[in-house]
Amino acid sequence: MELNKARQDLIKLQQRMAAYSHATGAIHYDGETVAPKGTYQNRAQSLAILSEEMYKISTSAETVELLEFLDANKESLDEKERRMVYLMLKGLRDMKKIPMDEYVEYRRLLVQSEAVWEKAKRNNDFESYRPYLEKVFATTKKFAEYCAPEKDPYDYWLNEYEEGMDMKFCDEFFGELKERIVPLLHKIAEKPQVDDSCLAGDFPEYKQEELSLYLMDVLGLDKEHVGLSTTEHPFTTSLGSHLDERITTHYHRDNFASSLYSVVHEGGHALYDTGSEDDLAYTVLDGGVSMGIHESQSRFYENLIGRSKPFIKHIYPKLVELFPTLSQYTEDDLYHAVNKVMPSFVRTESDEATYCLHVMIRYELEKAILHDELEVKDLHAAWNAKYKEYLGVDVPNDTKGVLQDSHWSFGAIGYFPSYALGNAYGAQFMKKMKETVDVEECLSKGDLGPINEWNREYIWKHGSLYEPKEILERVLGEPFSTDPYLTYLEEKFGEIYGL
Amino acid sequence: MELNKARQDLIKLQQRMAAYSHATGAIHYDGETVAPKGTYQNRAQSLAILSEEMYKISTSAETVELLEFLDANKESLDEKERRMVYLMLKGLRDMKKIPMDEYVEYRRLLVQSEAVWEKAKRNNDFESYRPYLEKVFATTKKFAEYCAPEKDPYDYWLNEYEEGMDMKFCDEFFGELKERIVPLLHKIAEKPQVDDSCLAGDFPEYKQEELSLYLMDVLGLDKEHVGLSTTEHPFTTSLGSHLDERITTHYHRDNFASSLYSVVHEGGHALYDTGSEDDLAYTVLDGGVSMGIHESQSRFYENLIGRSKPFIKHIYPKLVELFPTLSQYTEDDLYHAVNKVMPSFVRTESDEATYCLHVMIRYELEKAILHDELEVKDLHAAWNAKYKEYLGVDVPNDTKGVLQDSHWSFGAIGYFPSYALGNAYGAQFMKKMKETVDVEECLSKGDLGPINEWNREYIWKHGSLYEPKEILERVLGEPFSTDPYLTYLEEKFGEIYGL
Repeated sequence: MELNKARQDLIKLQQRMAAYSHATGAIHYDGETVAPKGTYQNRAQSLAILSEEMYKISTSAETVELLEFLDANKESLDEKERRMVYLMLKGLRDMKKIPMDEYVEYRRLLVQSEAVWEKAKRNNDFESYRPYLEKVFATTKKFAEYCAPEKDPYDYWLNEYEEGMDMKFCDEFFGELKERIVPLLHKIAEKPQVDDSCLAGDFPEYKQEELSLYLMDVLGLDKEHVGLSTTEHPFTTSLGSHLDERITTHYHRDNFASSLYSVVHEGGHALYDTGSEDDLAYTVLDGGVSMGIHESQSRFYENLIGRSKPFIKHIYPKLVELFPTLSQYTEDDLYHAVNKVMPSFVRTESDEATYCLHVMIRYELEKAILHDELEVKDLHAAWNAKYKEYLGVDVPNDTKGVLQDSHWSFGAIGYFPSYALGNAYGAQFMKKMKETVDVEECLSKGDLGPINEWNREYIWKHGSLYEPKEILERVLGEPFSTDPYLTYLEEKFGEIYGL
Repeated sequence: MELNKARQDLIKLQQRMAAYSHATGAIHYDGETVAPKGTYQNRAQSLAILSEEMYKISTSAETVELLEFLDANKESLDEKERRMVYLMLKGLRDMKKIPMDEYVEYRRLLVQSEAVWEKAKRNNDFESYRPYLEKVFATTKKFAEYCAPEKDPYDYWLNEYEEGMDMKFCDEFFGELKERIVPLLHKIAEKPQVDDSCLAGDFPEYKQEELSLYLMDVLGLDKEHVGLSTTEHPFTTSLGSHLDERITTHYHRDNFASSLYSVVHEGGHALYDTGSEDDLAYTVLDGGVSMGIHESQSRFYENLIGRSKPFIKHIYPKLVELFPTLSQYTEDDLYHAVNKVMPSFVRTESDEATYCLHVMIRYELEKAILHDELEVKDLHAAWNAKYKEYLGVDVPNDTKGVLQDSHWSFGAIGYFPSYALGNAYGAQFMKKMKETVDVEECLSKGDLGPINEWNREYIWKHGSLYEPKEILERVLGEPFSTDPYLTYLEEKFGEIYGL
């Protein structure tokens, strides 16, 4: 094989895979956004077949030969090519360990499972969803055993979402969080509660949509390449490459803050993806490197930016313009309201202080299931018990309980810890950023330019070129630590609650 | 090769192609509905690659061997299998004559061309679109020459949209139409014009959307499997199979009738597609057989049903409920207004009597270009001249002139005559239907059941099993004739205009 030809073939192979990923992405996106409700079996059929095609291409003898040849000649490759070959070989080796039929059936199952979950959530009917979820957990475990029989299956999946993450890390990480967050919550509980009545009212959807478009501009998203849709559950996805990015939100007529923070959160994901250098498009290096770093960006914009005092101050006039009843409240009222700490049932609506406890509950539950210490049939009872134990709340129903998140329905097991990790990463990034960027000043002027530029330079533009750990080292020049995050929480809520 | 295995492989091959068609369809549909405007190059990249994959599968040695084996054993196949093999072999033989690279480049061109056309139409800027349109016409001609060098290229394309159609047929067909429509228009022009002022006003989009959903119910469309979106230009498409059908419309705030008739027209297409027997799903027999028969159904529901007196009477209360200002007009006012005959610029907004003249203009122009008697650079002048000649109107700008239709931008050359043919088919079907179905009675009751059942039984359920000619023979037991259509026009407008 000739090296230069092989390098070209490497690019072509990735372009080909990107086209398939665009195809399956577009079918999924359609399913989540506008497809008629009775059509999911039709999508499952097509997605199963397309996943078979992708399986065949990525495990073909030709692909194996190409990647192994390039791997054997890696000293002649540039940094990007080396990382492409590394990531693709890793994916290929795992993929080949899963029998194709089982892989294809699993893709079909996930489409059905997600559709059934959505209906189950709407109808508060865990039982209809249970058989699907059982299969998803069982297959997840089986696939982990195929791919890494020497590893604990949950460790395998944690590492899939965040290179280097395992239970040992998570236990320590969550331990550190608990140690400082639980006392913080106790102190807050002793103080008078903040008043968030300004968030209630009637906020027509078309006005909330106008707010979404305004926020996309404030964030600096390029609307020529980033679309906005509404879905049951907000998410972000790239179609084909970072040149076509989509964020979604969900409007609640009685609560504008929910969609506001969805847009800012998903906007953070979209900034990260679309910030990849253009020459990464249609390669495996395009878009974010891991879910932990991804959530660091989404939670960064949602909280460190979006729930900060100067940001609230900046968007306040727009909010009053759209929702005139807000004019009876001050910027400070609003700032306090969106930062009210209150143990609750729903992760996505929870405050920054309690958020990580929601994640911990999911971490412990999925770990228990993968270790056969908990059965799916007992999952909703276990869920409710943990909410009582950690957050002191009685979950009123499964819709607001075990059915609230979509992740498990589409096989994302081992994903949740990324959210908590993202919070911690984000705070550590912010601390570093503040050494060179006057963040307060930027936010007061409503100019996110310098903030985005910092993130672009250190994080976004590299796409998946560097492992999370490498980003931390390059960016921070120091090891990961939970301290900046916990200090941030203590200072912020100390000030708000007068601790 | 073993016959039963080959029969199974035939089904599998079609399922595989249907998945690809679902993929490209979803990417296109996304592009037409919600994709951000700056992303068409990204879609062009993925669609070009996917079209290459499809090309390879459908022309592979394995596919050729399979289809030729089945063709050689066709006496052992059932009727459906025989037709599948016939259609697939025909497609395969044509496809193999086009060099793959040219085929792939053409798919890429079409995505760009459609995006450029849309912008050009918006900006009334024919020149920006001209180079793309030139390439589309040139490639169309070249591909016809590859596939059927013995044929006139325009005859080749006419036959692609309607098996059996050629210029000889069209010349005769349009000749017959002209002979009776032109005198009819002259007679109408001598009579006092009907008053259509009831159609003007302010009709908010959300109310028009409610009307669309109501009309879908009246038509008998199953909303679990038929979705509704808004696009610049209304169309209908199936994603993967007839089990997931989409119609689109466009709302004009000052004119509710435009979207009303778009929904009824596209609804006719959707009824036809979704009426395929379920076992045709994921085969080449799924959905309508030809564009002529397809337009017969869309134009049937739009005009013979939707612009009839009893239908208007049936939907009148709903219209008044949604748009209270209409209550000052009678059902008869509305009936006359939606049937006002008035030469105009825009085909899709034109009345039944002048409609075929719009189609004839396109027929003559595309024929002239494919025969090198007209250059694309002179197309808009030629367009305007023909509108003056046939319809007596001065086209005010290219947006309402040569840029109005999307068809050429996505390579649909030879398609337009199907619309006129569909009108004629539809009237002939209606005449036949009335022998056994009391159509007036059904419409008065707002019950389209028996009408739909007749269409389902004779047309829809067969999908692409029978050629258009066979449908005519089976359904009508008589050869095609323009007389029922022309008689219908003369009687209807004779009554409305008191001729």
